[in-house]
Amino acid sequence: MSRFFSKKYSTLVPYTPGEQPKDTKYIKLNTNESPFAPSPTAIELVNNAAKNLQLYSDPECRKLIEVASKKFNVDRDEIIFTNGSDEVLNFAFMAFCDDEHPAIFPDITYGFYSVFAQINNIPYKTIPLKDDFTIDVNDYKNAKGTIFIANPNAPTGVALSIEEIEEIVKSNPENIVVIDEAYVDFGADSAVKLIKKYNNLLVTQTFSKSRSLAGGRLGFGIASKSLIRDLNTIKYSTNPYNVNSLTMAAGIGTLLDDDYCMNNCKNIIEIRKWVTNNLKELGFTMTDSSANFIFAKHDDFDGEQIYLNLKEKGVLIRHFDKTRFREYNRITIGSKEQMSMFLEKLKEVLEELK
Amino acid sequence: MSRFFSKKYSTLVPYTPGEQPKDTKYIKLNTNESPFAPSPTAIELVNNAAKNLQLYSDPECRKLIEVASKKFNVDRDEIIFTNGSDEVLNFAFMAFCDDEHPAIFPDITYGFYSVFAQINNIPYKTIPLKDDFTIDVNDYKNAKGTIFIANPNAPTGVALSIEEIEEIVKSNPENIVVIDEAYVDFGADSAVKLIKKYNNLLVTQTFSKSRSLAGGRLGFGIASKSLIRDLNTIKYSTNPYNVNSLTMAAGIGTLLDDDYCMNNCKNIIEIRKWVTNNLKELGFTMTDSSANFIFAKHDDFDGEQIYLNLKEKGVLIRHFDKTRFREYNRITIGSKEQMSMFLEKLKEVLEELK
Repeated sequence: MSRFFSKKYSTLVPYTPGEQPKDTKYIKLNTNESPFAPSPTAIELVNNAAKNLQLYSDPECRKLIEVASKKFNVDRDEIIFTNGSDEVLNFAFMAFCDDEHPAIFPDITYGFYSVFAQINNIPYKTIPLKDDFTIDVNDYKNAKGTIFIANPNAPTGVALSIEEIEEIVKSNPENIVVIDEAYVDFGADSAVKLIKKYNNLLVTQTFSKSRSLAGGRLGFGIASKSLIRDLNTIKYSTNPYNVNSLTMAAGIGTLLDDDYCMNNCKNIIEIRKWVTNNLKELGFTMTDSSANFIFAKHDDFDGEQIYLNLKEKGVLIRHFDKTRFREYNRITIGSKEQMSMFLEKLKEVLEELK
Repeated sequence: MSRFFSKKYSTLVPYTPGEQPKDTKYIKLNTNESPFAPSPTAIELVNNAAKNLQLYSDPECRKLIEVASKKFNVDRDEIIFTNGSDEVLNFAFMAFCDDEHPAIFPDITYGFYSVFAQINNIPYKTIPLKDDFTIDVNDYKNAKGTIFIANPNAPTGVALSIEEIEEIVKSNPENIVVIDEAYVDFGADSAVKLIKKYNNLLVTQTFSKSRSLAGGRLGFGIASKSLIRDLNTIKYSTNPYNVNSLTMAAGIGTLLDDDYCMNNCKNIIEIRKWVTNNLKELGFTMTDSSANFIFAKHDDFDGEQIYLNLKEKGVLIRHFDKTRFREYNRITIGSKEQMSMFLEKLKEVLEELK
């Protein structure tokens, strides 16, 4: 860092995104992208929007919010769109955490939560997952801070039931509970339906995974009007035009084609089952994933070694260098063709490691 | 605000963007947009990028940085791209200001600076412009904080010379000086050429005005490697994928067509001269604008009244409710056709006010 860099960030360790290879030769199963193209309507609306880029995007995202509020069955002022769901999560850390309201989240979860806490100078506390990588709901009841739970969790893929989520929300009337549903469309139950009942609940989602818009950067939050107003106060104090016109158009088109996207999710779930069965046969242990990835370790071979050998063969999966799960790899569910190739290369790797 | 909203923002007043009318009937001269369409190559590259939105955007913005570094004659690690220049400005407040390094800027300038300071809990000090709305360079020499100067300034349009900018930068070796060049292409001299000489200088620019990409949200900062590294630390701790693939494609296309954009700027400068002469004849006093807008007050009639009457006639200009310049309006320079219509309607308004 330069000598001008503010000392308040002297211990800050930024988030590390998954590798983005410079060439496209890899089968990329490391960043949970969708193998399916964006919806045709999304592409069409983007092409139209491109012609008018000289005009500012609508800071209120009115058209997008109109379509989304119908889709998610909420009022227009119960939703906020952001530059990816990372942005709405960051806004939530800013708005709802401080010295009196530390952030609370599992020890194994989306790696960005601790970075959001640090960049905002917010104290945080992590609660260990159980040995089987599941969340103990009782750990989050009557908490003393703002709770962040990814459901399904990452990188484990394990989901809480909607009843368990409600138990947590209900037992924390004085705390905000943020449910990060980045992967919800691959097999978990959304808590959006609870926001009319609980004014302390914020649900966040993204268009990056189930809606094939990772490159478009579109996320959103759904909550009671008063929480959305708070998040908008943050938005209008950092970047009122946070969602550009092209992404907004892509979002509208995607929601108009939502059957296409939800059908893609069904396909991913099918492929996940098939890959899971194959991995079991190859000697892997896995969590019960409700996401578009599998969290797997081999009973005999080192996780990092498998990752490295697969990379050499042109298949990228994600390995995390964290003590509690260094034997595990996170494998994105790609297309049937990609996963066939993955399994083929994996068999070669396991042969070599014997 | 909700009862959950952090008390640290209890006095925060968000930025108010210019009105975005719901219909398109207005001649919109209130948000400094370009009247010219985006470059043809930008539109073409966006259309191509739309097909691959299922993949994440490149967090390192490599292709865009490659093209931009050639255009601006800097090294690749001397540039950072952001979601509009608002984002790089916010990053600069975060990285280079704190209790020991308050923000310093003119009392009349881009209204967001004070909001950035507030949202980041940074103390700030404003320095009054002279009575003629110009900056006294001496006020910024040997300052005790981080300096933010819009050049040309907004909403006055008045520019400092490159020699004056250098005087400020040179006299502040222990302070960061941020030169916000959102409007530089309309007649001011860029300080980018000074970044190799001074490691305390950050220059920010936007594609929103001179490059017809307001709706695309693309801004950037140019500075010494070490300052860019600091800004990247902030970026990777808030939103690593801050620039989406579509906007990145638009940015690349725009830079490849830069002659088109710079020619548009020449047109705007011509139209500005023509409008300025007309306004003088109509009894207006103006600052000497180097931007794509004019800052004007009428010698006899109330500024707000002129704004309101023009709005009624379908012409939107920007009026600010600030004591020191409430008689002034900021009028964006649109196309020749738009400005002819503006002058016609303005004459009607002045007739009515007589």
